[in-house]
Amino acid sequence: MTDLTHFDSEGHSRMVNVGHKPVTERTATAEGFVTAHPETITRMAGGGTAKGNVLEVARLAGIMAAKKTADLIPLCHPLGLDSVEIEFSFTSPDELRIVATASLTAKTGVEMEALTAVSIAALTVYDMCKSIDKAMTIGPIRLLSKTGGKSGSWSAPS
Amino acid sequence: MTDLTHFDSEGHSRMVNVGHKPVTERTATAEGFVTAHPETITRMAGGGTAKGNVLEVARLAGIMAAKKTADLIPLCHPLGLDSVEIEFSFTSPDELRIVATASLTAKTGVEMEALTAVSIAALTVYDMCKSIDKAMTIGPIRLLSKTGGKSGSWSAPS
Amino acid sequence: MTDLTHFDSEGHSRMVNVGHKPVTERTATAEGFVTAHPETITRMAGGGTAKGNVLEVARLAGIMAAKKTADLIPLCHPLGLDSVEIEFSFTSPDELRIVATASLTAKTGVEMEALTAVSIAALTVYDMCKSIDKAMTIGPIRLLSKTGGKSGSWSAPS
Amino acid sequence: MTDLTHFDSEGHSRMVNVGHKPVTERTATAEGFVTAHPETITRMAGGGTAKGNVLEVARLAGIMAAKKTADLIPLCHPLGLDSVEIEFSFTSPDELRIVATASLTAKTGVEMEALTAVSIAALTVYDMCKSIDKAMTIGPIRLLSKTGGKSGSWSAPS
Amino acid sequence: MTDLTHFDSEGHSRMVNVGHKPVTERTATAEGFVTAHPETITRMAGGGTAKGNVLEVARLAGIMAAKKTADLIPLCHPLGLDSVEIEFSFTSPDELRIVATASLTAKTGVEMEALTAVSIAALTVYDMCKSIDKAMTIGPIRLLSKTGGKSGSWSAPS
Amino acid sequence: MTDLTHFDSEGHSRMVNVGHKPVTERTATAEGFVTAHPETITRMAGGGTAKGNVLEVARLAGIMAAKKTADLIPLCHPLGLDSVEIEFSFTSPDELRIVATASLTAKTGVEMEALTAVSIAALTVYDMCKSIDKAMTIGPIRLLSKTGGKSGSWSAPS
Repeated sequence: MTDLTHFDSEGHSRMVNVGHKPVTERTATAEGFVTAHPETITRMAGGGTAKGNVLEVARLAGIMAAKKTADLIPLCHPLGLDSVEIEFSFTSPDELRIVATASLTAKTGVEMEALTAVSIAALTVYDMCKSIDKAMTIGPIRLLSKTGGKSGSWSAPS
Repeated sequence: MTDLTHFDSEGHSRMVNVGHKPVTERTATAEGFVTAHPETITRMAGGGTAKGNVLEVARLAGIMAAKKTADLIPLCHPLGLDSVEIEFSFTSPDELRIVATASLTAKTGVEMEALTAVSIAALTVYDMCKSIDKAMTIGPIRLLSKTGGKSGSWSAPS
Repeated sequence: MTDLTHFDSEGHSRMVNVGHKPVTERTATAEGFVTAHPETITRMAGGGTAKGNVLEVARLAGIMAAKKTADLIPLCHPLGLDSVEIEFSFTSPDELRIVATASLTAKTGVEMEALTAVSIAALTVYDMCKSIDKAMTIGPIRLLSKTGGKSGSWSAPS
Repeated sequence: MTDLTHFDSEGHSRMVNVGHKPVTERTATAEGFVTAHPETITRMAGGGTAKGNVLEVARLAGIMAAKKTADLIPLCHPLGLDSVEIEFSFTSPDELRIVATASLTAKTGVEMEALTAVSIAALTVYDMCKSIDKAMTIGPIRLLSKTGGKSGSWSAPS
Repeated sequence: MTDLTHFDSEGHSRMVNVGHKPVTERTATAEGFVTAHPETITRMAGGGTAKGNVLEVARLAGIMAAKKTADLIPLCHPLGLDSVEIEFSFTSPDELRIVATASLTAKTGVEMEALTAVSIAALTVYDMCKSIDKAMTIGPIRLLSKTGGKSGSWSAPS
Repeated sequence: MTDLTHFDSEGHSRMVNVGHKPVTERTATAEGFVTAHPETITRMAGGGTAKGNVLEVARLAGIMAAKKTADLIPLCHPLGLDSVEIEFSFTSPDELRIVATASLTAKTGVEMEALTAVSIAALTVYDMCKSIDKAMTIGPIRLLSKTGGKSGSWSAPS
């Protein structure tokens, strides 16, 4: 079976040595969904004009979480970040879509940063709305695409 | 429309005042799933004997993340924690189930701690296995149940 | 000269022992100002309708920073928080006022949490607007009032 | 009205993309003041010989806070730092001046790091002395100068 | 063989449930040593008068680290702290002794907080002096005593 | 007496300016020991098959702590990391040896990262086993070797 890079030949966890990898431009885009009662979705969507902007709080939480990725994911390399952007859209009457894009010029990729941004943005939406709708669900969350690095570009199968 | 507790009457975000809420025992249980290629699932399941234990790394990441919840979710109250436990099971050849339970004796609930533990454990599984399977998806993540507090017990609709 | 409580009799810094202090309700309110070019102030004030809400970003930054106070101020006790609220008002054509109130039921006060919330909210306003106005100044920042604890209530001299 | 770089064309907050900016040497210097009762200032000034060195605690707090800037200011890029220095002087019988200089070789500037160092150093002075003087005020805090980057050198108007 | 409390009956790591443990006063004292070249020790000892106070920097680092214990030690409960004190003494011409005492009124003990304070203070001494003496060694570090909790008082064998 | 680089000519602490130092490949290796009752050591050594893997928890704690070094050691520069690895071996019936190696391509060395990884791994071993053996001792911890940088290679005297 294929070995996982985060373990050495004896199965011990490690932070993989990226010392000899070239510095390249890298981007990653991830998406996630929050499924909620249509009234909850309506409440989120009214952010710009109504009492309190759920999505702007979630956006900031996601951006700030991207900066904490290496603190959260045990074997992630600590990275700088060139950019993080998070967009929200309403894809059905009971569904919010979250898309995060992160970029960096470095030796390792930013997939985990984009996925972490989406996940914490979704959890923040849950936190902001749980007083009216505890049955919300989060997911699916997945990587949509990445560019840069030795393995080059990758896109999720559609 | 119902107002969200995290905003005041003018729509400004705030950390809700829980000063006069009673201190009670509280628990919360959340679940989440990681869908992956069956070979990836086999690799995860072999943790005890094969080269490296993906799930034990994810379990620790989830427990440690539960302790960071108030740092990640902007309007969460900073809380102690009495316990955090995370269990994994394989619910189909291509699916890992993650269940986290957190408990606390305090003025506010631990729903976000349980959901955060599940989310970061799932992201860590993704990170550990992404070198062999980038197409994994995370979710649905949801609250299964909570006890304690003014609103009492709640269970997810089945 | 009066000794400072954060040093022992030999002048060594310490986290003061509060083990025998009673747990009481405590609140603290702090204020701060940002002085800026009137056009910058106009830009901040237009947050609800124009392109991007500077004050809502600053509000969240201040609330989140209050939770990090013990991590920032070396000899502060780590505390929970019952509430944090931050309000903004425009007190002259070139001046933004920031008021933060924090509360807690504990052995020590929340003055530093309120002051930290104001300070980081002000720094965030600076960061958000510095591309158009680097000459903004922050201050004066001061404690307005506190309640609870052995020393009881205190209000800033007017 | 000029757009703020931290928002996109729809007014959504973002971490600005600096991926294509050149890496240059950058420095920033910020200043701030703490106004206190003359006896409190005398107590601070006696640090080298008397019981406990307020300013050395504040200096370390400021340096450590500079390293946390991206964790505190929501849309700041995570940065390394080449140096941070903080100097104190007594500019009148009731006034302490704090000057922080930070430098870095990177794609974005270190203004926020210098301002954060000054702010947290000032808050720490407040915390260390608040048992004898709660009426201290902090400010004005401002950027004195910066060098490097596309916009080049900037100095505060005198 | 005795089971370790941090693992469940299947060997999975967990944060032990302390929900039903009584809240009691607890203290812990730990010690550690740094062995260095006598000239390095002389340099440390001259802190009060010479150029820079190594021990005061180390003391603050140790106190601040005690507050981060639950962030560093994966299965530690997040705790408040009632006090932390660190004392230094020179026990031979080539040896610095560090003693840290932490206290708390809670459901779990503060042994790890005291040990973490000693360890990080020692590492900071190393960092401050490594430009003149890289061969310093740290240790032995051990728990000297604890009080409070179900297991009551314990003292290290002499 | 030689001046310490972490202080300026007036004895004020500072983060040393490394702006003009060249970026080079750097590695550091540190070691540490935990002395415990032979039954405790037997319990640690059984990790792969028995109930719970103490060393794998400690390994992750050490790796994650290496990433927090600049947050723990006041005057350390914030650094990325190219790799961190931690190995354990049993060097006598009552002794565990911990060796950590960190590497980086940067302006400053990674000695403190390697030493911090060893220290926190050792503290985690203590935490995991303290329910059966409070008398464990940690140390000696020391730097074994470093490469890169102006001062070049260094090895501990044997």
